[in-house]
Amino acid sequence: MSTWYNRIAGQNLERLAALSDGIFAVAMTLLVLDIHAPAAHAIHSENDLWLALCALAPRMLVYLMSVLTLGIFWIGQQTQFNHLSQSDRHFTWIHIAFLAVVTVMPFSTSVLAEFITFRLALLFYWANILLLGLILYLSWRYAAHAGLVADADHEIRCAVERRILIAQSLYGFGAALCLFNTAWSIGFIVLVQLNYAIAPRVRPFSRL
Amino acid sequence: MSTWYNRIAGQNLERLAALSDGIFAVAMTLLVLDIHAPAAHAIHSENDLWLALCALAPRMLVYLMSVLTLGIFWIGQQTQFNHLSQSDRHFTWIHIAFLAVVTVMPFSTSVLAEFITFRLALLFYWANILLLGLILYLSWRYAAHAGLVADADHEIRCAVERRILIAQSLYGFGAALCLFNTAWSIGFIVLVQLNYAIAPRVRPFSRL
Amino acid sequence: MSTWYNRIAGQNLERLAALSDGIFAVAMTLLVLDIHAPAAHAIHSENDLWLALCALAPRMLVYLMSVLTLGIFWIGQQTQFNHLSQSDRHFTWIHIAFLAVVTVMPFSTSVLAEFITFRLALLFYWANILLLGLILYLSWRYAAHAGLVADADHEIRCAVERRILIAQSLYGFGAALCLFNTAWSIGFIVLVQLNYAIAPRVRPFSRL
Amino acid sequence: MSTWYNRIAGQNLERLAALSDGIFAVAMTLLVLDIHAPAAHAIHSENDLWLALCALAPRMLVYLMSVLTLGIFWIGQQTQFNHLSQSDRHFTWIHIAFLAVVTVMPFSTSVLAEFITFRLALLFYWANILLLGLILYLSWRYAAHAGLVADADHEIRCAVERRILIAQSLYGFGAALCLFNTAWSIGFIVLVQLNYAIAPRVRPFSRL
Repeated sequence: MSTWYNRIAGQNLERLAALSDGIFAVAMTLLVLDIHAPAAHAIHSENDLWLALCALAPRMLVYLMSVLTLGIFWIGQQTQFNHLSQSDRHFTWIHIAFLAVVTVMPFSTSVLAEFITFRLALLFYWANILLLGLILYLSWRYAAHAGLVADADHEIRCAVERRILIAQSLYGFGAALCLFNTAWSIGFIVLVQLNYAIAPRVRPFSRL
Repeated sequence: MSTWYNRIAGQNLERLAALSDGIFAVAMTLLVLDIHAPAAHAIHSENDLWLALCALAPRMLVYLMSVLTLGIFWIGQQTQFNHLSQSDRHFTWIHIAFLAVVTVMPFSTSVLAEFITFRLALLFYWANILLLGLILYLSWRYAAHAGLVADADHEIRCAVERRILIAQSLYGFGAALCLFNTAWSIGFIVLVQLNYAIAPRVRPFSRL
Repeated sequence: MSTWYNRIAGQNLERLAALSDGIFAVAMTLLVLDIHAPAAHAIHSENDLWLALCALAPRMLVYLMSVLTLGIFWIGQQTQFNHLSQSDRHFTWIHIAFLAVVTVMPFSTSVLAEFITFRLALLFYWANILLLGLILYLSWRYAAHAGLVADADHEIRCAVERRILIAQSLYGFGAALCLFNTAWSIGFIVLVQLNYAIAPRVRPFSRL
Repeated sequence: MSTWYNRIAGQNLERLAALSDGIFAVAMTLLVLDIHAPAAHAIHSENDLWLALCALAPRMLVYLMSVLTLGIFWIGQQTQFNHLSQSDRHFTWIHIAFLAVVTVMPFSTSVLAEFITFRLALLFYWANILLLGLILYLSWRYAAHAGLVADADHEIRCAVERRILIAQSLYGFGAALCLFNTAWSIGFIVLVQLNYAIAPRVRPFSRL
């Protein structure tokens, strides 16, 4: 039966991790390709160059947000993998879907940087974050269900799920702020991300 | 004799796997580079942006097909490697040829996205899929012949070969549908690929 | 508590190393993308091509400087990792910040190559080098503080810190030379980097 | 003393291999970026598309040559690494120089594809091949000298050196053929490379 193939396919967790590291590495580096050096013919003095670099500030902010997004989800995926003993074909395909969304990040970043005041651009970007969180959640549930988890006790399982649910609620609230203004959305999402990156030991932030 | 060099060259299966993961990672990420953010000067409202993003739908479909193609063949290669004990120079060159075809995928994807109604573009894309399958088939036969396979019993060997032959027959049928319409071809190929990605436990699909 | 998640997140040093190798590999290769082949319509003879390639010399110099910069910091990071037993979430985020600066290098290189006589371009480039050194220094201090260092005696710890401090002093002096002329800055920085790359056994250079 | 740092720096052979795999993977994939899909506005029929794809044939040939070049040198580097027990800082820098030349390959390929009848473009490309061979030769001599080689008897050592010297002689002869015509050079070099890739068991080719 062809089910034989499905039983032996895609069981190598190390190679899935290597593919993931490669895709995150390329995606993070490509984010910057969208920030172009100013055109030489328009720059005649140090001051012109200074203004041209300052004009790149909004792109830099969106770039920073995307690095934080990719960093957060790279750590999220890695943390799951650290508790798994092996992979299987379904788990592998869940993560290929995850990686496909990761590869779309440079595009979403580019759209948001170009149309930073447009709600649609922000919602498109947020849909990316939502999908990443959703797939990671599914992956963790599937791994537990299929017996791929090696050494995670109950507390660890809940911690992973709670983290995803709380984070997505905050991102969702941030996205909803675009009803008022996309700047508020971006600001709120970056603050949430910085909180996760820095992990200050101050309540209530340390409990999120 | 120079055959000495050929005896010691290219025996590291881990590095071949690492090179493959790198090339698949870059190829998957480059697929998206072809989807450009809409030009800012043509967009004056949320509605304009919505229409501009919708206009990218055909490219998105081709992008999805290419991610599925690369995912399927990445898993196919990985599954073979999982059963090998080592590599040799011939096996390494077979896979460099395989990877060379992988690197052509962003180009074929770009041609198909640009000329989605042209039979030639579809056949060019299909030739890529055919070559990937052909080389994987040769690689498996060569590995068995050269004694590189570590732990695959007869059933596993047949499962790998059957999977490639059936899949290529379906892709070939899909490509032939372009005699009527390239849209039918693309639709059929994407459905076959989704079937392989999702692997539903419903007959007759689970037997393909 | 959510601190559970922070306790288990980002502990895999091998994956952090793999992400770093990927990002350095992409950044090093992208540096060259900025060096374009001369446009065919402007070249009518071997001599034209020779002149067009010679005109790329300043870009080649900046490219060489950036390869040296990335090589030095890749080795610096690797040397730290070789002495660590594991990672934790704070350490992982310190290195994601490090890698974010690495991904900016192709942009800074591009700005400097385009505006090689502008002080601001040179200072922007130097700020990159400074940040890389600063983050590596923090990372080493944090790793020692958090008990991540496995097998480094006191002499090794001091050697790593001294290397960073001396190197950054030299780069800072080189950057300050742009008060006179950016060419002096670039020349001095490249010489310092070549000294670190070649590591001649001649005093006083071997003591830097 | 600062020599302390030089003693502990860059000793991780696995990470040097990982960086190399990443750079080769990106360089191989970027080669194709230079082959652009034909512009849609100039294509009105299947026949137009066929002619436009055929017009890419010279670029495809140069692309094939570059994949072969990178494949040969990737295997060459891997074969050396397979016989080493560890790295040191000098060895690491020799290979960063090697990788810097690898990253230049997409540029040289682009120059040769654009100016395929120009001797200078061919010699520039050949200089790349020569440098790659030269650095690999130095790296092997240095590794033997510094005691980094783990398990290579005299015959293996000679086989590696002979392979490089014979191959470079053949490439040098191929490059010299451009005195007559660059097409002869390219043809001869591709034949030599195909011989190394396929390794036919026919004398005299198997003795090269």
